[in-house]
Amino acid sequence: MRELIQPAEGKLGIVMPGLGAVATTLIAGVEAVKRGLALPVGSLTQMGHIRLGKRTENRCPRIRDFVPLAGLDDLVFGGWDVYSDDVYLAARNARVLEPAMLDAVRPALEAIRPMTAVFDPACVPNLDGDHVKHAVNKMALAEAVVEDLQRFRREHGCARLVMVWCGSTEKYIEPGDVHATLEDFERGLRRNHPDIAPSMIYAYAAISLGIPFVNGAPNLTCDVPALVELAMRTGTPIGGKDFKTGQTLMKTILAPGLHARALGIRGWFSSNILGNRDGLVLDHPDNFRTKEVSKLSVLEDILRPDLSPELYGDIYHKVRINYYPPHGDNKESWDNIDIFGWLGYPMQIKINFLCRDSILAAPVALDLALFADLAKRAGMSGIQEWLSFYFKSPQTAPGLRPEHDIFKQLIKLQNTLRHMMGEDLITHLGLDYYQELTEAL
Amino acid sequence: MRELIQPAEGKLGIVMPGLGAVATTLIAGVEAVKRGLALPVGSLTQMGHIRLGKRTENRCPRIRDFVPLAGLDDLVFGGWDVYSDDVYLAARNARVLEPAMLDAVRPALEAIRPMTAVFDPACVPNLDGDHVKHAVNKMALAEAVVEDLQRFRREHGCARLVMVWCGSTEKYIEPGDVHATLEDFERGLRRNHPDIAPSMIYAYAAISLGIPFVNGAPNLTCDVPALVELAMRTGTPIGGKDFKTGQTLMKTILAPGLHARALGIRGWFSSNILGNRDGLVLDHPDNFRTKEVSKLSVLEDILRPDLSPELYGDIYHKVRINYYPPHGDNKESWDNIDIFGWLGYPMQIKINFLCRDSILAAPVALDLALFADLAKRAGMSGIQEWLSFYFKSPQTAPGLRPEHDIFKQLIKLQNTLRHMMGEDLITHLGLDYYQELTEAL
Amino acid sequence: MRELIQPAEGKLGIVMPGLGAVATTLIAGVEAVKRGLALPVGSLTQMGHIRLGKRTENRCPRIRDFVPLAGLDDLVFGGWDVYSDDVYLAARNARVLEPAMLDAVRPALEAIRPMTAVFDPACVPNLDGDHVKHAVNKMALAEAVVEDLQRFRREHGCARLVMVWCGSTEKYIEPGDVHATLEDFERGLRRNHPDIAPSMIYAYAAISLGIPFVNGAPNLTCDVPALVELAMRTGTPIGGKDFKTGQTLMKTILAPGLHARALGIRGWFSSNILGNRDGLVLDHPDNFRTKEVSKLSVLEDILRPDLSPELYGDIYHKVRINYYPPHGDNKESWDNIDIFGWLGYPMQIKINFLCRDSILAAPVALDLALFADLAKRAGMSGIQEWLSFYFKSPQTAPGLRPEHDIFKQLIKLQNTLRHMMGEDLITHLGLDYYQELTEAL
Amino acid sequence: MRELIQPAEGKLGIVMPGLGAVATTLIAGVEAVKRGLALPVGSLTQMGHIRLGKRTENRCPRIRDFVPLAGLDDLVFGGWDVYSDDVYLAARNARVLEPAMLDAVRPALEAIRPMTAVFDPACVPNLDGDHVKHAVNKMALAEAVVEDLQRFRREHGCARLVMVWCGSTEKYIEPGDVHATLEDFERGLRRNHPDIAPSMIYAYAAISLGIPFVNGAPNLTCDVPALVELAMRTGTPIGGKDFKTGQTLMKTILAPGLHARALGIRGWFSSNILGNRDGLVLDHPDNFRTKEVSKLSVLEDILRPDLSPELYGDIYHKVRINYYPPHGDNKESWDNIDIFGWLGYPMQIKINFLCRDSILAAPVALDLALFADLAKRAGMSGIQEWLSFYFKSPQTAPGLRPEHDIFKQLIKLQNTLRHMMGEDLITHLGLDYYQELTEAL
Repeated sequence: MRELIQPAEGKLGIVMPGLGAVATTLIAGVEAVKRGLALPVGSLTQMGHIRLGKRTENRCPRIRDFVPLAGLDDLVFGGWDVYSDDVYLAARNARVLEPAMLDAVRPALEAIRPMTAVFDPACVPNLDGDHVKHAVNKMALAEAVVEDLQRFRREHGCARLVMVWCGSTEKYIEPGDVHATLEDFERGLRRNHPDIAPSMIYAYAAISLGIPFVNGAPNLTCDVPALVELAMRTGTPIGGKDFKTGQTLMKTILAPGLHARALGIRGWFSSNILGNRDGLVLDHPDNFRTKEVSKLSVLEDILRPDLSPELYGDIYHKVRINYYPPHGDNKESWDNIDIFGWLGYPMQIKINFLCRDSILAAPVALDLALFADLAKRAGMSGIQEWLSFYFKSPQTAPGLRPEHDIFKQLIKLQNTLRHMMGEDLITHLGLDYYQELTEAL
Repeated sequence: MRELIQPAEGKLGIVMPGLGAVATTLIAGVEAVKRGLALPVGSLTQMGHIRLGKRTENRCPRIRDFVPLAGLDDLVFGGWDVYSDDVYLAARNARVLEPAMLDAVRPALEAIRPMTAVFDPACVPNLDGDHVKHAVNKMALAEAVVEDLQRFRREHGCARLVMVWCGSTEKYIEPGDVHATLEDFERGLRRNHPDIAPSMIYAYAAISLGIPFVNGAPNLTCDVPALVELAMRTGTPIGGKDFKTGQTLMKTILAPGLHARALGIRGWFSSNILGNRDGLVLDHPDNFRTKEVSKLSVLEDILRPDLSPELYGDIYHKVRINYYPPHGDNKESWDNIDIFGWLGYPMQIKINFLCRDSILAAPVALDLALFADLAKRAGMSGIQEWLSFYFKSPQTAPGLRPEHDIFKQLIKLQNTLRHMMGEDLITHLGLDYYQELTEAL
Repeated sequence: MRELIQPAEGKLGIVMPGLGAVATTLIAGVEAVKRGLALPVGSLTQMGHIRLGKRTENRCPRIRDFVPLAGLDDLVFGGWDVYSDDVYLAARNARVLEPAMLDAVRPALEAIRPMTAVFDPACVPNLDGDHVKHAVNKMALAEAVVEDLQRFRREHGCARLVMVWCGSTEKYIEPGDVHATLEDFERGLRRNHPDIAPSMIYAYAAISLGIPFVNGAPNLTCDVPALVELAMRTGTPIGGKDFKTGQTLMKTILAPGLHARALGIRGWFSSNILGNRDGLVLDHPDNFRTKEVSKLSVLEDILRPDLSPELYGDIYHKVRINYYPPHGDNKESWDNIDIFGWLGYPMQIKINFLCRDSILAAPVALDLALFADLAKRAGMSGIQEWLSFYFKSPQTAPGLRPEHDIFKQLIKLQNTLRHMMGEDLITHLGLDYYQELTEAL
Repeated sequence: MRELIQPAEGKLGIVMPGLGAVATTLIAGVEAVKRGLALPVGSLTQMGHIRLGKRTENRCPRIRDFVPLAGLDDLVFGGWDVYSDDVYLAARNARVLEPAMLDAVRPALEAIRPMTAVFDPACVPNLDGDHVKHAVNKMALAEAVVEDLQRFRREHGCARLVMVWCGSTEKYIEPGDVHATLEDFERGLRRNHPDIAPSMIYAYAAISLGIPFVNGAPNLTCDVPALVELAMRTGTPIGGKDFKTGQTLMKTILAPGLHARALGIRGWFSSNILGNRDGLVLDHPDNFRTKEVSKLSVLEDILRPDLSPELYGDIYHKVRINYYPPHGDNKESWDNIDIFGWLGYPMQIKINFLCRDSILAAPVALDLALFADLAKRAGMSGIQEWLSFYFKSPQTAPGLRPEHDIFKQLIKLQNTLRHMMGEDLITHLGLDYYQELTEAL
């Protein structure tokens, strides 16, 4: 399918609902990287390599040299927020990057001012803000976002757009009738149905224009039949949900390792302390519920207690997030894992991760934007399961188990890229190296 | 090649130089499992499943039901040691398993008495023992081991044997001329060359009889051209070296995860405390050197600093092992990992693993014995790289980088089994699930 | 006052409301110690020494050899519980001590059967039990406890009794009018006032008989004017509240150390996981509130933010307790402490305490019983502030700050014992050692 | 003795052999504090309070307001180093304080240039430097230091001087005949005895001029009879050795707490990683030996295994320091402590201290300089045991056990200050508060 991929010509606009810590860290970082002030560490598209062919061929190009991605110099950023601060001020308030670094790219950041946001205090009780849109109903709000998108594309001369949700975690919503079909959903928009959250309004607007949509929060958003239907109709790639960073990243690294060795697990206690806006929002039980569902699901898929009840049938898995202002954006996680081995003998693992929330999330947002744009140009529409690698709670086709094991997710991503470019898929079998050896004897 | 695998009929003898903590924990454990007293947790052959076909087929048999392995009821155990204690006494002294569990299988353990060992105090300065063989030269010692093997097979009516080195870490030996060809090696045996360690004598004896040999310690042993040559000639599978447990197991789980996300690493400090016989032996600098080489190599292969010097080109990697008697066999590791992300911002990970050395090693020894026997019956001879999964320092064909990433090792192992049994290899591509979806629309 | 202390003649009955993990661990332990099977580690009265005189005198007797305490052979145990299990069964269910140890003292444990308990499900929502007293009002319940005490003393031929509350944490109660005077309180008992919890009924019964009362839980219990008044009238020592174990023990060790060095503190996050009955009870917010108040107060007293606002004026202190069944009684705490030093530079301390709740609490209960009995014989009545050493939330005279610094508490305890026995108080001045040196020159 | 203390009039010169991380952090910090840019956190003299009289009197002045100390504005700094960098450059290289803070006081730092150092590469093998004195023998070197001191005093118009050793750890030296008497020592100086290290030459020069000398490293230095004799003759206060910071600080906080509760200890494993010049020096076994002796001694004194062999008679105590450049001055310690409680049941404590070596040491150096000057003015000569609070390995009178318990050290320090100023010593008895209560009834 290599020849079918359209080239990455012209500017790519990355538009983000929520210009908080993650979005501003992304924007300031890309500006710093463009000026040679820093490296885009953590971004697989920019820093990662991919092995091609046999081990002995030593072909390992950078991913950005292998697949036709938009270059950083072609990126244009924009977004919406409930506060009217420009990106420089918002970044200062977020306290993620050092002032000296922000000052080095200050004009570029000050030039980006948020568009007025779609906001519903019922969905995010711990936040408020007055830089918001007002309209007769949710459909009118969606139309306002459509206008924002068209104006942004025009004003910045973008060839293509991608939307990445970088806003807050919304309160927990169960999928219901209003999300069942596109028709139901559009009726719900017009009737202000309470189960249509702001993130869904943004997603609807983007997808209806054929703009790829990626969801960085655990909100339901585009993980409903109505919006999948719309994405298929408009030929739009979508993906979600919840950027995989911090503790869950570690969990989906470690759990596959324990599972690989058939070690049993009795309990997994995960505690987090963080002091940023996200921590404040998650201090409200309704919003934590959304996050908890996203965080708890990963173990079950990786460990498959249905297949191995004697190893994983009785895990006590608990996740806690505590608002702790002294740490700011420096999220810290502490995990205690009770495992057991040969004959059931118990062992323990403790992991203390002193991470930085937005530093881990920003390159994920970048990669997703670039890959979603690639998918669009490659004619891939609907759910992009090969991007599961980046999500805490991957969206999949109905009836298909999500894959949480980060290593299987990585192979899926890499083999998808190889497949796109007409390279052999890699199986790590490698018996041939030894057959040659035998024949040589 | 499925039809070419000979069935696992008759008894399989597992003979181990070194009846210490690992070997006695293995033996007592298998006896307990046979009696239904406990589960063989940590053993992939006994507890693990393997996915076959498409995700939606839901075919995930246990590995032992998929490939023709020897059953636990067909296993017979034996070994050599520098102390004359029977396995029951040795297990009590090792203080790994609870007395109540050992007492439940006491007669079976008491029945196993060690054969006299090949021992060289120059190779293991912190140990001594008087239950040792004396002979005119190392070739004569090898012949004595050959006789032991033949007698053991005869007396226990074994259809097949496998040898698993469970002895101590020997002092560091560089590969040299004496290891270059089989002829050099055999001359060295006759001339008592100092660079032929006891573990090599055992390996030579086993391989010359076509008995698969697996090396659980970091010693050079069969990782020399002379013994690979012998293995190819006698059609014998060999594998090594150093059972992957504890801290290195964690390292080969975690490092691939950090690498997958293109996160940089500046330093990795690994400290261990353990108080068993292994800890005592490793307290001697010559022996620690052997272990250190084995433990340090893993990061370089996984991270590929040659490809990503800006992420991994300047790692300060340090491993320390401290003898600490209060913990006995309960090895504890503590790792500090200095990583950096987006724009170079630093983060830290601390891992504290309260593990049990022999509890992790015993099932590894079991799996290796069973898979080595399978390889023998499948006509696979020489280095078995598909068993890298179990080793800290996998032996490979000359010129081939070892693979340390435990997840690539796992895929290699699983795809080898699938290949043996004529099943499709798995690539995790999975685009077809979504093509159906598109077509359905 | 040495000559005024009555000798410890005859049997001392220790009666405990709540025959759960702590009480059964205490009883089984004392029985094991009496039989020479184990040592009463953690008990200052049994294992601790006290320095007397000058450093150069080398007088450091054991405390039990210095002050006239009841001997372990003279102790008799009894108690009340909402379950009718005898102490052997209750100890097995508590899963604190190994079955082999319990079996070694089984008859002594089986002989102790709980009396029916005073219980109010409104005070402990997560528990139930049917081995409870029924009566027309709370005064009648108190009278039933008085009868229990008199019968117990008679049947076991006890010369003296001490009551130690080892029951659950009750829901949070604010001190109110009903607790203001003895008259108010007795009226409340007759009128079933909802703010008179079961623990108060036990305390009232004991104190009215002149039986020393010690409170091992954070409940209000005897920390009200009414019961202090009763204790003064009946010449009864009382003390509380909440055995100082685990995380708070560590906190009152560490905080004085940081304060001693004038190091600042910005945040202290304390997380606990435990899976015993106490953990279950504390999973209910009302009960956790009682515990939280007890746990949060310690830092303020030790650090004195009023005196040093620039160091301690802005601490974010958070305590969380999570019910985590896999650990049972093996409570684990994890603390992150954000400190700052010279010029405000930040540092961090992480403490992971793998403790055992009842193993730490049992010797505290023993010491308190023995010291309370000593105080009674020494004619000391009312609040025993010198026992603050053992409490998370020490009861003090009105208007007097409690002392939480464990080292000041220890000096207070030791100097009280020295004072009782007519020894010099110790000030650690010690300039005299050097004056001699000067004079010698 | 209050009236006998001479007032702190005129300038106080603090002169330091070794202008490395600690000294430059001290100097830059005092300059910053003088300008109101930061607070002298960690300094008891500047930030700490002292309670006077009864608890209810609420008298808690700052220590600097209670005893007559030199003020920060009256301090003048100087020193010697083997490198000729001025203090600004040296501070930049030390990478402890942020460049912005150093730049704010740059002129004051640049004005301080090191005098040429007494240096002996045999004592510090991992260091070199060319800014050193050359002389015919060690006595001549001492005389050169005397001249330096006299010139410094004159040039800076100092009323008084204090010398604080801030140089490296020297190789281990056993006290020998050359250190026995002043006569032996001076003969040794003239004969270049190898067991007279540079730090002793500095100490000899200072003490002979009556200048108080404080030793911040674990070197033997003034802890020999010869120099104590000199100090008594010249009326000079001396103190040492080894600033108590980091892991040992934590150890002398925690061990008294465990001992207070009669909890047993089986093992204490202490690992450190640090990447500053001190770490480099300690990477050499000879120098580590000096540090190890200093670090290991603390537990024995605090726990008194001679009195409690069943609790502390069999501790396995191990200390490791690992050079780990990625952390620079950010020393990190990790401790595993194996304790046991009631009936011998085991528990574990893990402490991870992410500290900053020089940030902890600088205020200790400041306090010691100010208190040593106070002692001089108060006519106290020889060993100042009341300053044990600040040392890993306190120097005491011959035959007197050092006191390592930081809380006893604190009381000793505070009661010494109270004694100096004619205030009542504090015993924490406090029974009187309750006698009033009883009488009131």
